[in-house]
Amino acid sequence: MRFDRRFVLAALAAALLPVQAAFAQSDPLPSWNDGVAKKSIMDFVGKVTTPGGADFVPPAERIAVFDNDGTLWCEQPEYFQGVFALDRVKAMAAQHPEWKRQQPFKAFLSGDKKALAKQGEKGLLTLVAAAHSGMTTDEFAKSVADWLATARHPRFNRPYNELIYQPMVELLGYLRANGFKTFIVSGGGVEFMRVWAEKAYGIPPEQVVGSSGVTQFRLDAAGKPTLLKTSKVQFVDDGPGKPAGINMMIGRRPILAFGNSDGDLQMLQWIMAGGGARFAGIVHHTDAEREYAYDRPSKIGQLDKAWDEAKAKGWTVVDMKQDWKTVFPNKP
Amino acid sequence: MRFDRRFVLAALAAALLPVQAAFAQSDPLPSWNDGVAKKSIMDFVGKVTTPGGADFVPPAERIAVFDNDGTLWCEQPEYFQGVFALDRVKAMAAQHPEWKRQQPFKAFLSGDKKALAKQGEKGLLTLVAAAHSGMTTDEFAKSVADWLATARHPRFNRPYNELIYQPMVELLGYLRANGFKTFIVSGGGVEFMRVWAEKAYGIPPEQVVGSSGVTQFRLDAAGKPTLLKTSKVQFVDDGPGKPAGINMMIGRRPILAFGNSDGDLQMLQWIMAGGGARFAGIVHHTDAEREYAYDRPSKIGQLDKAWDEAKAKGWTVVDMKQDWKTVFPNKP
Repeated sequence: MRFDRRFVLAALAAALLPVQAAFAQSDPLPSWNDGVAKKSIMDFVGKVTTPGGADFVPPAERIAVFDNDGTLWCEQPEYFQGVFALDRVKAMAAQHPEWKRQQPFKAFLSGDKKALAKQGEKGLLTLVAAAHSGMTTDEFAKSVADWLATARHPRFNRPYNELIYQPMVELLGYLRANGFKTFIVSGGGVEFMRVWAEKAYGIPPEQVVGSSGVTQFRLDAAGKPTLLKTSKVQFVDDGPGKPAGINMMIGRRPILAFGNSDGDLQMLQWIMAGGGARFAGIVHHTDAEREYAYDRPSKIGQLDKAWDEAKAKGWTVVDMKQDWKTVFPNKP
Repeated sequence: MRFDRRFVLAALAAALLPVQAAFAQSDPLPSWNDGVAKKSIMDFVGKVTTPGGADFVPPAERIAVFDNDGTLWCEQPEYFQGVFALDRVKAMAAQHPEWKRQQPFKAFLSGDKKALAKQGEKGLLTLVAAAHSGMTTDEFAKSVADWLATARHPRFNRPYNELIYQPMVELLGYLRANGFKTFIVSGGGVEFMRVWAEKAYGIPPEQVVGSSGVTQFRLDAAGKPTLLKTSKVQFVDDGPGKPAGINMMIGRRPILAFGNSDGDLQMLQWIMAGGGARFAGIVHHTDAEREYAYDRPSKIGQLDKAWDEAKAKGWTVVDMKQDWKTVFPNKP
C-alpha cells in the first residue's frame, strides 16, 4: 500500500498539532529559545511567586524595572529620541527664520557637517533642546505622535515604535501575569516615552521613569492652565541617576531589573543589594544580522563594566543571537 | 395588654437591625453625612464608571490625586513633618557636639526662642535640612518609623499617623473599589510620607508624589550601594509645582483632585482643564471642636484664593463640621 505523500504530511501535522498547541499555550515566552537565560528568568519568577516558599515575595513588592534604549527597543544607529529631535528641528525651521543665521541651526539645516562638528556636543544639545522646549506639554506629546506616524528607521524601514523587542514584550507580559508591576527606568525623556510606551509595552505613563526638564505652570490669556516645557534640566535618569530616580519616583527597591549597557550598572547594583531573591539581566547585542552587534567599544550602548560585573556576579546575560527566536514583532 | 418597655425596645431594635445593616453595607462612605458634598462625590463616581454613559472614563484614566497635609491628615498646630524634623535634631544632638556652638542649633537646643527667631526662616530650614540629609535613604526611613512609634500629638495625644481623616480614608477606598488609582500629590517630603502612607491610606510608595532632595549613589567601603541624602533640593511639589509634579511623576492628567489650601489651587486648576467629567474638592476646616477651624488668615493651610475659585467655579467644598460624622479613626 502506497500512501500519498501529502496525506502522510497532513496526518503527521494533525497528530502533532495538539502537542504544538499545548506547548504554545504553556510557554509564556515563545520567542525565547530554551537555554540558560530563559530558564533563569522562569526559575526566578517561579520561586518568588510560590506561596510558602523560602523566596516568596508578596505581589506589592514585585517591582520590575527595565531600561528602554537597547533593552526594550533598538538604539542603533542613533538613539531614536535624537533622530526625533533633529527631524523636529527641520520641521520647525519654517517657523524660525532666525535659525538661518544662528549656529548650530545654520550648519545643521544647510547640511554643513564640518561647521556642525565645530559646534561640538554643545551644538548638538542645543538642537535637541530646541525640539524639547518652548512648547506646552500637550504640544510636545503631539509632535512625538506625529513623528512616529511618519518617520521610518533607515535600515528596517519601519516606524520606530515597531522596533521593540518581541521577547522583551513577552517578558513584560509574563511578569505582569505573575503579579509584577513593570516600570521603565530610562535615560530617555520621560515625556517622549509616555506617548507610545503604553501601546508598545503595556506600561502606563505613571510607570515610566526617565529624564525630565523643568516645566512652568501658566494661565494663558484665556485663563487656561498650561505647562510650558523649558530648556532647564530637572533630572537626569542615567547611570547613578537611575537608583536615584527609582528612589524618587518608585520609592521601593525593585526585585528584578534588565539593562543593556554601563548606564544601567548602578541600577543593577542597587536592586541586587536588597534582601531576598533578586534578578539582574543584561541584553547583549550579538546579532548583526537581525539587529546589531556591539558592546565594549560602542559609542552608543557601551557594555563594558556592567558586562564584567555580570560575569563576576553571575547575573543573567541574554545573548540576542542565541536566546531570541525573533527580534522584532511581525509587521502589523 | 401592657407591653414591657424593654420588650418593645428590643423588638423595635430587632426589626430595624436588618435595615441598618443593609444601609451600612450599601453605603461606601459611612463617615460622611448625607449632603451636597457626599452626593456630588457619589454622582461623579457613578457617572464616570457607567459603561456606555456620556461621561464614562476607562479605568486606566481614572487617576485621583490628593494633597496630604490638611486633606488626608491633620496639619495643626504645626506641619507634622516639621515636628518630626525638630524632634530629630534634638535626638541627633548627642552625635553633633559642634551644634552647641553653631547657630541655629545652639539657639534651638538651648530653648532660646529669641535667638532662634533672629535666625529667621533660613534658620528653621537649616534645622529641617539637618534632619533630612547626611544619612542614607534607609537610615532616614528608619528615623521616620522610630519617630512615629514614640511621638504624640500635643492636643490629641495620639501617634501622628493616627490623625488621618476617616472620611477621606473611606473615600480613597471607595474610589479604588471603582477602578480609580489613588495618588498623593503633596508638598511634603516624598520619603517621609512613603514610610507610613501605605498602611494609613492603602497608597503604595510608587503612588506618592512629593517634594524631594538630591540623593547621591555611592558604593561604601564594603562595595555595598547606598543612596546618600544631600541637603540640595531636587523638586518642590507645591503650588505651581503640583501640576509640574503630576506631569513628571504621573504623566497623565487626573480626573479628580482634593486639596485644602491655596497650595493646591494650581493642581485643581490643572485637573479641571482636561476634557470630560472632572471633580475638584476642597476640605474646609470648620471644626474647632473635633479638629481645627482655619481658612483665609491661617499661616498653615491658608485657604483664600482657592476658596474663592471653588465658589466661582462650583467646586465641591467639604465642610468638616457639617459633612463628617467622625474626623479621626477610632483608637486601635
